[in-house]
Amino acid sequence: MGGDNAPSIVVKGADMARRRFPGVNFLMFGDEQRILPLMKRRKRLRAITEITHTDDVIANNTKVLDALRKGKKSSMQLAIDAVREGLAVGVVSAGNTGALMAMAKLALRTMPGIDRPAIAAILPTMRGESVMLDLGANLECDAENLIQFALMGDVFARTVLGTVSPSCGLLNVGSEEMKGHAEIQQAAAYLRQMEATLNFQGFVEGDNIAAGTTDVIVSDGFTGNIALKTTEGTARLIKEFLSDAFHSSLPSRLGYVFARRGLRKMRDRIDPRRYNGAMFLGLTGIAVKSHGGTDAFGFANAIGVAVDMAANGFNEKITEGLEAFGDFEQGPLEAAAS
Amino acid sequence: MGGDNAPSIVVKGADMARRRFPGVNFLMFGDEQRILPLMKRRKRLRAITEITHTDDVIANNTKVLDALRKGKKSSMQLAIDAVREGLAVGVVSAGNTGALMAMAKLALRTMPGIDRPAIAAILPTMRGESVMLDLGANLECDAENLIQFALMGDVFARTVLGTVSPSCGLLNVGSEEMKGHAEIQQAAAYLRQMEATLNFQGFVEGDNIAAGTTDVIVSDGFTGNIALKTTEGTARLIKEFLSDAFHSSLPSRLGYVFARRGLRKMRDRIDPRRYNGAMFLGLTGIAVKSHGGTDAFGFANAIGVAVDMAANGFNEKITEGLEAFGDFEQGPLEAAAS
Repeated sequence: MGGDNAPSIVVKGADMARRRFPGVNFLMFGDEQRILPLMKRRKRLRAITEITHTDDVIANNTKVLDALRKGKKSSMQLAIDAVREGLAVGVVSAGNTGALMAMAKLALRTMPGIDRPAIAAILPTMRGESVMLDLGANLECDAENLIQFALMGDVFARTVLGTVSPSCGLLNVGSEEMKGHAEIQQAAAYLRQMEATLNFQGFVEGDNIAAGTTDVIVSDGFTGNIALKTTEGTARLIKEFLSDAFHSSLPSRLGYVFARRGLRKMRDRIDPRRYNGAMFLGLTGIAVKSHGGTDAFGFANAIGVAVDMAANGFNEKITEGLEAFGDFEQGPLEAAAS
Repeated sequence: MGGDNAPSIVVKGADMARRRFPGVNFLMFGDEQRILPLMKRRKRLRAITEITHTDDVIANNTKVLDALRKGKKSSMQLAIDAVREGLAVGVVSAGNTGALMAMAKLALRTMPGIDRPAIAAILPTMRGESVMLDLGANLECDAENLIQFALMGDVFARTVLGTVSPSCGLLNVGSEEMKGHAEIQQAAAYLRQMEATLNFQGFVEGDNIAAGTTDVIVSDGFTGNIALKTTEGTARLIKEFLSDAFHSSLPSRLGYVFARRGLRKMRDRIDPRRYNGAMFLGLTGIAVKSHGGTDAFGFANAIGVAVDMAANGFNEKITEGLEAFGDFEQGPLEAAAS
């Protein structure tokens, strides 16, 4: 029931995902009176979907504490509970990010060695694709959080993106060693000592994200969220300017007609719907957050992310990967001090 | 002597600025042996330029404290001193941002009511242009800093951009009132009370920057710096993808030829060199920071920013504007409490 156009995009997205991922089936939680009519002409989807009715919904402006306290019967909580109870392999929601994270963290718990889960997403870059985290789960992060994000990002890039020895960078206001505040300085100092196991490249700047300078970009959630949305805004602005350019004269219009196919391919390359589906890393269950304003195609991609994670045994690999970092569980900073 | 290609781009940029701003003249500080050869074929520039030789340079990786302690004879410090002594109306540098800010703050001092100066820049948006601050002077900001930035941004938009009742937004991870950390919450609570004098629109998100949702965007320096550079990186990525699109087939190449003029106009609209020259707001003297990697055209634009600020009596207007906010000088938060 979450996001700007629920449950319509959820049902339509599930129908698209059904065709793309044979064998998948759905548990839907929400207002049956609104979901069932959407199912009418989707017999195949209906056949693989179990609907659990609930009136209760977490609104986008519901505070996290209220969601936790009063939302026990909400569609969001019920969907997460289904993962905890093993009825579903993962949960996908386009709803309130803060509430989803808090509920998922309580119900699914964090992996050994991880204090706080992080929101991660794959981004298109000049060199291919990179993974960036945290994108908004943790507004304020200490050094230990950032270190844990780096380790999770490393395992993610190796297992999901298939990168050998992924390079990792800490998002900062400069690449020089002395740049940035205490937390980021402390995290970098620790990560530099890990060179045997982690390919840490030091600090990266905002423009390094799109450049693909490193395979993993680590950030606190406040900065990461704003950087991600700034990317979206800039892409939209340039698209608008580009459209103006092609409408500016008759030759330009003609030019567009000739270049159309190439331009469509380009548009697809940066289509935010293609990259929809941010993963909550560090939880023992799979939880994927869809952009609230996406459409059915975007929501289907978010479902695809959850399916991929389940099919690849992603959480098991993250857990193994974290164990491989050795004495990590006792807390990286204490381990460094000992 | 600062930036990636000094003193060459500085001299060439000054020569461009000379043609654009009749009556301007320059004091240059740096290595005479490297500056003079560049002047050889620039007799007109030479005639309006006074060169003061110094061997000492602040490097880009010099720590701020070292710059302050050991850089008394550096080209940067001498240029700032010239402003303090009234020999120059403003200083323009492509060098170490942190050192420039620290030196300028010490030598030029902050305006009454301003604790910390901020770096501001004008950005192209869907609706025209907006001003954003802070872009990196203050990595950690408390509520009072953010409030002061909002007031300075407001005066800036009114005097430089000519906006009537400029709208102002605080950069955050969501537009809902409860979003964000304590500092930003406290700043918003205060700014909301100022509706009689300030057109505060609440929180804005990363994608609102390029959308031009508000005329002024206020941020702490860490986030602002990363958002600005993310914008640059995204623009570069799309430019690259666009180039690929036009090279992808013969019709696409032909399309480019037809659309070329319109596309050039678009490229100019987002050319970062056009927007080069970040202003240090809140100081009693004019100081402009050029991008370190810019070229002569970009550096000439940074000089243009300083010339504009001087010609429009910008600092006087900011001071007046801040006074007009009434009991502001006693500190906004205490004023709110009283």
